[in-house]
Amino acid sequence: MSGKSFERDSSGSRIGNETELIQTYLAPLAEGMAGAFGLTDDAAFLRPASGSDLVFSSDPIIAGVHFFHDDRPADIAWKALACNASDMAAKGAAPVAYLLTLALPEAPERDWIAAFADGLRAAQSEFGCKLIGGDTDVTPGPLSIGITIIGSVAAGAFIPRGGAKAGDHVFVSGTIGDAALGLALRRDPSQFSTLTDDQRALLLDRYLRPKPRLALAGPVRSHARSALDVSDGLIKDLRRLAGASLGIAVKFDDIPLSPPARAALAANPNVRDSILAGGDDYELLIAVAPENIEKFVTSAGESGIRVHDIGVLESKITTVVLDPSGVPIALRRPGYDHFSR
Amino acid sequence: MSGKSFERDSSGSRIGNETELIQTYLAPLAEGMAGAFGLTDDAAFLRPASGSDLVFSSDPIIAGVHFFHDDRPADIAWKALACNASDMAAKGAAPVAYLLTLALPEAPERDWIAAFADGLRAAQSEFGCKLIGGDTDVTPGPLSIGITIIGSVAAGAFIPRGGAKAGDHVFVSGTIGDAALGLALRRDPSQFSTLTDDQRALLLDRYLRPKPRLALAGPVRSHARSALDVSDGLIKDLRRLAGASLGIAVKFDDIPLSPPARAALAANPNVRDSILAGGDDYELLIAVAPENIEKFVTSAGESGIRVHDIGVLESKITTVVLDPSGVPIALRRPGYDHFSR
Repeated sequence: MSGKSFERDSSGSRIGNETELIQTYLAPLAEGMAGAFGLTDDAAFLRPASGSDLVFSSDPIIAGVHFFHDDRPADIAWKALACNASDMAAKGAAPVAYLLTLALPEAPERDWIAAFADGLRAAQSEFGCKLIGGDTDVTPGPLSIGITIIGSVAAGAFIPRGGAKAGDHVFVSGTIGDAALGLALRRDPSQFSTLTDDQRALLLDRYLRPKPRLALAGPVRSHARSALDVSDGLIKDLRRLAGASLGIAVKFDDIPLSPPARAALAANPNVRDSILAGGDDYELLIAVAPENIEKFVTSAGESGIRVHDIGVLESKITTVVLDPSGVPIALRRPGYDHFSR
Repeated sequence: MSGKSFERDSSGSRIGNETELIQTYLAPLAEGMAGAFGLTDDAAFLRPASGSDLVFSSDPIIAGVHFFHDDRPADIAWKALACNASDMAAKGAAPVAYLLTLALPEAPERDWIAAFADGLRAAQSEFGCKLIGGDTDVTPGPLSIGITIIGSVAAGAFIPRGGAKAGDHVFVSGTIGDAALGLALRRDPSQFSTLTDDQRALLLDRYLRPKPRLALAGPVRSHARSALDVSDGLIKDLRRLAGASLGIAVKFDDIPLSPPARAALAANPNVRDSILAGGDDYELLIAVAPENIEKFVTSAGESGIRVHDIGVLESKITTVVLDPSGVPIALRRPGYDHFSR
């Protein structure tokens, strides 16, 4: 791991230099990875398991875009790794290691970086991977956290986004829309005043601490035709799963919602759009061939994560969500899109 | 590859949306990589060569920090990949693939992104790797280009930064300081007025288009004890090679300089500090055990890249550079350091 030094304020509450940042706070996250050299090298190595393919995803998160400047540092760190681990789950892969590039607007407070490292530790422990390298920089821009995650999957078993066929059933894990409502709450805590404190806390937690569905990686790898995670909104990601030649008509009432999301929807019907188009769910959309549905559902059941059959992919139809009277729901925006907000 | 859309200005000279950015300009860079899925997936896979370790490095470059906002886009792209490929050379590894995360302040001009992609194409063709994935985002900050490079090395053959022993000779490739002088020229083109246009162009090129010493990866892998690339200044990186227990006294006159650097130094003795402490050389520092020197020098000679023996690592000495009268040169700053500039 290499980095630029922070030489100012070495006697204060801020990090004194790059060596302190890396060796005190980050190197413990690389313990046990021989190829990480305690983050003292410019590069790292991994020995792939025999008969395995390595899987890669690289999704940075940027303050003011993917999280709030004043989010808790442990939550920021968790989210940075969780977004990337979610891609591994969708591909049927198990996370192994990750590289971290930190672009910091200034030398961080020791308390802040300690909490950030704690969040990374919690996440990597939960997801089964360790830090092996990266870089630190000072940036004139906002805090930016780049993660490249490395996963492992049996050779040839990677589950692509494309390749679903007409007749495949589409399953969605967990519940949809909670993170979008959590984001609305994060922006304006006075929202959803008819919900209980616990319900609001659940929504906020879904936004701040996404839970990649790694327990579903096995069922996906063994029984799915294609899969992706819901990061940019259900409809946008359904369209990606369907590809250019297929579509799916999903009944809104078939979309799994949490009790808080149901309560928020009951109090305000406009919440429906946020549920359908909001991002950050990090649930999985999984296309399963008819002959594999029983095995997939059994295997998913054993994982402890609920999956819901929300419809069938068909040729020559557009992907839509239907209201209870069968009318396609028109959305102001079909999914997360920075420029059109 | 995933990304956020750019929906404004779709009729103008700027990219209309994320699909155009990725599919028109970036996907061609992934041609031939089956596991990249034409950049239509959220993740990619690689099948490691049997008996090999994979090597990873992740170094972003940020406008205003590592390059100038108005550098030519092809040069920016080249530099982004070259910095990372340089780490592979130092580890004895061969680049295989890379992930690219682009954080753009706004939807880019089509001309800009086309030239950027051309720069990436030239670099990946030169370095022997291809794009396999990544992400695009809109950022409130400056343009930032994150590369994670993936290399391959025979299992167990990774050359670490640490591990040099007393008595090892230190070799440096090419010439030192050109990039630092090129950076000075980039800031103020009126500098070094005694140099010829060609000499100034060479210095500028060394800064704008660093050449990773990949041809030395084989000699390093086969004969070196430890190595790293010179990215933060010769003295700082010599100290890293020496580690906590060793040091080296290098005579300034033994440091290989290019004819333009010699000319600049002759005209202004203060140039010496820039040569010693400036970054961005991307030459290699290589520690070789005495019994391997002959084989290393022969092998390096066959690579076509010059290497120079600049001294011997010793116990219990500090790393210094000595002037012609044998006095250690005191530097205002020992190497690149963003905060203390």
